[in-house]
Amino acid sequence: MSLLPDERVDVLASRNIKIIQSATVFSFSLDAVLLANFAQIKRHSRVVDLAAGNGAVGLFLARETDGQVTMVELQPRLADMARRSVELNHLTNVDVHAGDLAQTTQVVAKDSVDVVTCNPPYFKVSDQSITNPNDHLALARHELTTDFATVAKVSADLLKYQGKAYFVHRPERLAELLATLTAAGLAPKQLQFIHPREDREANMVLIAAIKAGRPDGLRIMPPLIVHEADGSYTPVVRRLLHGE
Amino acid sequence: MSLLPDERVDVLASRNIKIIQSATVFSFSLDAVLLANFAQIKRHSRVVDLAAGNGAVGLFLARETDGQVTMVELQPRLADMARRSVELNHLTNVDVHAGDLAQTTQVVAKDSVDVVTCNPPYFKVSDQSITNPNDHLALARHELTTDFATVAKVSADLLKYQGKAYFVHRPERLAELLATLTAAGLAPKQLQFIHPREDREANMVLIAAIKAGRPDGLRIMPPLIVHEADGSYTPVVRRLLHGE
Repeated sequence: MSLLPDERVDVLASRNIKIIQSATVFSFSLDAVLLANFAQIKRHSRVVDLAAGNGAVGLFLARETDGQVTMVELQPRLADMARRSVELNHLTNVDVHAGDLAQTTQVVAKDSVDVVTCNPPYFKVSDQSITNPNDHLALARHELTTDFATVAKVSADLLKYQGKAYFVHRPERLAELLATLTAAGLAPKQLQFIHPREDREANMVLIAAIKAGRPDGLRIMPPLIVHEADGSYTPVVRRLLHGE
Repeated sequence: MSLLPDERVDVLASRNIKIIQSATVFSFSLDAVLLANFAQIKRHSRVVDLAAGNGAVGLFLARETDGQVTMVELQPRLADMARRSVELNHLTNVDVHAGDLAQTTQVVAKDSVDVVTCNPPYFKVSDQSITNPNDHLALARHELTTDFATVAKVSADLLKYQGKAYFVHRPERLAELLATLTAAGLAPKQLQFIHPREDREANMVLIAAIKAGRPDGLRIMPPLIVHEADGSYTPVVRRLLHGE
């Protein structure tokens, strides 16, 4: 297992996971850690992580289940990094599929998955001008190659009856996200809002949805605050990052 | 101005408003105080409060504007209490209309209102068995005589272009509420979740929507926490109730 010149290995201490990172293509961030923490994984859960990037979410979940964890990532460079991180951590229950997430049911059977996770591109293409549409970071941040309706549909296709899907996304799109999930047959069940400080507006939302769940059962979990007033991490975030 | 045997006068100190209450029909609660605080009223705002109950929200807003404040309440007993509270506070810019809110445009012109507020019945009729459908409290709590789709439509009809609507509701219905508002032409712009304690799930949500606003601009405000760990009110709630 070797590193390319622009790569480094980071460690998520709380989960004892090493992950190959590169600032020039994509680095996992707090979003992935929060999503992995939010997802409820059982001992034998079959898991698919869509838009896997360099594999952060799938890697963080892999030790929680002895079921198979499949990562799906369009960009070959990122999929390759994810594969090498799987080796680096000696994980035997993780596979990485380089391809368009819209085609996932060609490699994972429909109605066979317990948990789908996805940290998708947050921004509509129209939101900001894209200076370089071939840029790795632009692909990760903008809906150039997929969109949330596709993510929701594929998630619903993959999941078993009453299987769970977990997403992290931007709160300004919440109304559309909830409508899109509902239309895809995924009933929103829990939201948790992430606030950078307790007196600031939320800048992320964690969403749990259940396939064929009943509507009107949405729970708004206690808010998760990232920083104290002095800028340091709150105890809950320190624990998620460092396991303290 | 006289009180009936079951009535008392409460005071919302923070707004210097007296309000005729009765435990046997309906009492204002923190919900109304939070909604009145959340609504952004300008000096000349024309305001309509739908499902006004004993008039709490409209009374709390009446001193913020020299525009007219119209309360609409179906139950004559509650409308009468609201009228007497208007007298008790010597308010000259408030009128109370006893009638079905669905008919509000017969008494207030369409496209003429700056701000609509509503603390509607929270529960679907199917949610719980209604022991007495003629009960004042059941009418206030359950969608026996109106529902949120009607509230949203009437609000949109009343509001001027880019007028604002403010609601307090239950978070378990959030997905439906956002979809209903969007369908009525009211774009959700702000949500604030109310948590009884910082480590508890939200039990109320405040919603601001704008007529003919653009989608995808939803802001999630900092959470509002009602109680400290020891059960006492938080400073923000003490200030809203007592003006401390």
